[in-house]
Amino acid sequence: MDWNSLFAARARDRGGAELAAILGGVPEGVLGMTGGFPNVATFQTSVLADIAGRVIADDPGVALQYGPSAGLPSVRAYLRERVFALQGRRPGEDELIVTSGGIECLELLCRTLLEPGDVVAVEAPTYLGALMGFAHYGASVLGVPMDDDGLQVDVFSDLLAGGARPKFLYVIPEYQNPSGRTLSLARRSALVELCRRYGVLIVEDVAYRELAFAGDPLPSLWSLGPDVVVQAGTFSKIFSPGFRLGWAVGPAPLLAALADAKQNTDQCASALAQRMVEEYGRAGHFTEGVARARALYASHWAALSAALAEWMPEGVTWSEPTGGMFTWVTVPAEIDVRALRPAALEGGVAYVPGRPFYAGDEGHNEMRLSFSHLGEAELAEAGRRLAGVIAGALDASGAAAR
Amino acid sequence: MDWNSLFAARARDRGGAELAAILGGVPEGVLGMTGGFPNVATFQTSVLADIAGRVIADDPGVALQYGPSAGLPSVRAYLRERVFALQGRRPGEDELIVTSGGIECLELLCRTLLEPGDVVAVEAPTYLGALMGFAHYGASVLGVPMDDDGLQVDVFSDLLAGGARPKFLYVIPEYQNPSGRTLSLARRSALVELCRRYGVLIVEDVAYRELAFAGDPLPSLWSLGPDVVVQAGTFSKIFSPGFRLGWAVGPAPLLAALADAKQNTDQCASALAQRMVEEYGRAGHFTEGVARARALYASHWAALSAALAEWMPEGVTWSEPTGGMFTWVTVPAEIDVRALRPAALEGGVAYVPGRPFYAGDEGHNEMRLSFSHLGEAELAEAGRRLAGVIAGALDASGAAAR
Repeated sequence: MDWNSLFAARARDRGGAELAAILGGVPEGVLGMTGGFPNVATFQTSVLADIAGRVIADDPGVALQYGPSAGLPSVRAYLRERVFALQGRRPGEDELIVTSGGIECLELLCRTLLEPGDVVAVEAPTYLGALMGFAHYGASVLGVPMDDDGLQVDVFSDLLAGGARPKFLYVIPEYQNPSGRTLSLARRSALVELCRRYGVLIVEDVAYRELAFAGDPLPSLWSLGPDVVVQAGTFSKIFSPGFRLGWAVGPAPLLAALADAKQNTDQCASALAQRMVEEYGRAGHFTEGVARARALYASHWAALSAALAEWMPEGVTWSEPTGGMFTWVTVPAEIDVRALRPAALEGGVAYVPGRPFYAGDEGHNEMRLSFSHLGEAELAEAGRRLAGVIAGALDASGAAAR
Repeated sequence: MDWNSLFAARARDRGGAELAAILGGVPEGVLGMTGGFPNVATFQTSVLADIAGRVIADDPGVALQYGPSAGLPSVRAYLRERVFALQGRRPGEDELIVTSGGIECLELLCRTLLEPGDVVAVEAPTYLGALMGFAHYGASVLGVPMDDDGLQVDVFSDLLAGGARPKFLYVIPEYQNPSGRTLSLARRSALVELCRRYGVLIVEDVAYRELAFAGDPLPSLWSLGPDVVVQAGTFSKIFSPGFRLGWAVGPAPLLAALADAKQNTDQCASALAQRMVEEYGRAGHFTEGVARARALYASHWAALSAALAEWMPEGVTWSEPTGGMFTWVTVPAEIDVRALRPAALEGGVAYVPGRPFYAGDEGHNEMRLSFSHLGEAELAEAGRRLAGVIAGALDASGAAAR
């Protein structure tokens, strides 16, 4: 078979090497600050083991069977209440469906909305899995710059005023992947108002929303603009990625189309996973589990942050996340962090280079560090190692320039 | 928001009403012979409850975490041995990946292979979920007629000789969905030979393969032609659909592309589900579980078959499955089975009309009956009820003609 001629254009252009590398893990002995993997210590394993056994034994006709594409009715009802409790607005019966993780929600949105040539606006940088999804559907991606307060809404406003007409804007308002930044309250209101005025759908990814180091998160975009926002949520960061479960909340006509599209992705999310989240949540376990995760990531960030402050050479800067799993490091422009990777692995530390998080060719001197997976002592050491590798590269580049 | 103008063409054309109806279940009091749902009695619930608790408690770092898109290494190794044990040919390390059910494998294949306007050849009739998937990717579907020995390979040969060049042929060789028919041994060899000659990829869906009422299945197409066949398998019919788990076996270059494509569907199948299938299988539970399912469906078919023979009016015929979950009923041409559905529901019985299983407009007087879900006594009663509804329609049509 001549596979190359058989493949569709979207399959010939493989953008996924970086994601595959992240999912594949790091070599033995290397301190990996790569994947946005939740820490295994945040999994309430004995509770989950107990619930799994109970749900399978007591409810096999539901938990082990096919279910409706939109999700099991009891699970949808629970999730509507959960969204209300967390966001202060209760979705209607036809305004919430179950998805197989947040990534599947993006796939369903692409499938439902995108024609080749359509424009999708994103934060620059943004989640690389989302960029890959948009590219697969032939969309052209419009990056909107960020600063410490998140997406620059005034720049987006200028782009719209100048004639840009994206099908939707994809945004991660809290502790953004990859930058760790949070969209400010003033910008949230302005963004909803702006998108309402231009009829631009907002796709709000709340993957990290519940992981504030302290205090409450800002109002969700969906709660501010339920008419123009569809929200993609996931249980991967606050429960476990091993179940592939998430939810979508948004306007009913769009949600109905997403449920239809789901007939061809996997037909329905795992019924066992759905019933487990419902039992876990109704028994109140999210309260303790999420609190534990927040405390853990806060202490992780404190450890990494201290190491970066102590060891990083001058000219290196990083974002200051107030939750989530990521910081975004900018090194002097003469360093290409992709070229630096072999030296970093040699030095026993791994990061994700910044360029794949942009639709354009920015980011050569930026990198994402995840502090979710490693422990505090490891993060301190990883920060020290990374600083050493960067300092070495700066020395070499200085020497070459002399 | 003007949703209609926002939707992509593929989302405006909703073909999924029939599938949604199947997944949604039937009204109280109606005997449903609709979904290809495994019978809950085939789930080894106490074994599964025990394994779930154990895997979560002992192996949370794997079972509750993200994993590689191609599947967990230990699970892939187990599945390769399982395929070897069942099909007599051992896939190489890069010739098997894990999928989120059989339907996701079809989605990955479409994503990897199909450009708008490409031709996909199918058995006529075929699985409606597959037809919907092909349509979503803008493929044009070429139906190849079947008889009691399955796909008419000589007709397909004529089509190829006449210039047809499908990207692939989608075929369900055993106890086909929806027809219950099985591709004969002679045709299997001829089909592989034919497709090899023309360079046409065969997509072999083995969803029902392990559910023979008695004896061993015929050689799989993949075992006969590993160079031209990609096989999609699922654990939904022999383990549980509640986990969304399947596998793909085939040529390495294609499998690598499918694993890449999976980065944008759900990134990875549920690690818990993967580890559970592995533990279940390595402990030998498939032997008993599949044997139990085969015996159950054999007795179900015996019950339905007897009822059809006893009650169906003259002029009604049906296929004689030797495994699986379906029979295909043809009624006299003057009856439109979709128009008959309200009367059938009124009469307390439900079936799936035949037309959605065709790409063209055949099938108005055909229907699929599933005998997996109902028990023997219910099937006997369902067959009697259905026969009564059809007899009533024939009487009315005879009266109208007089």
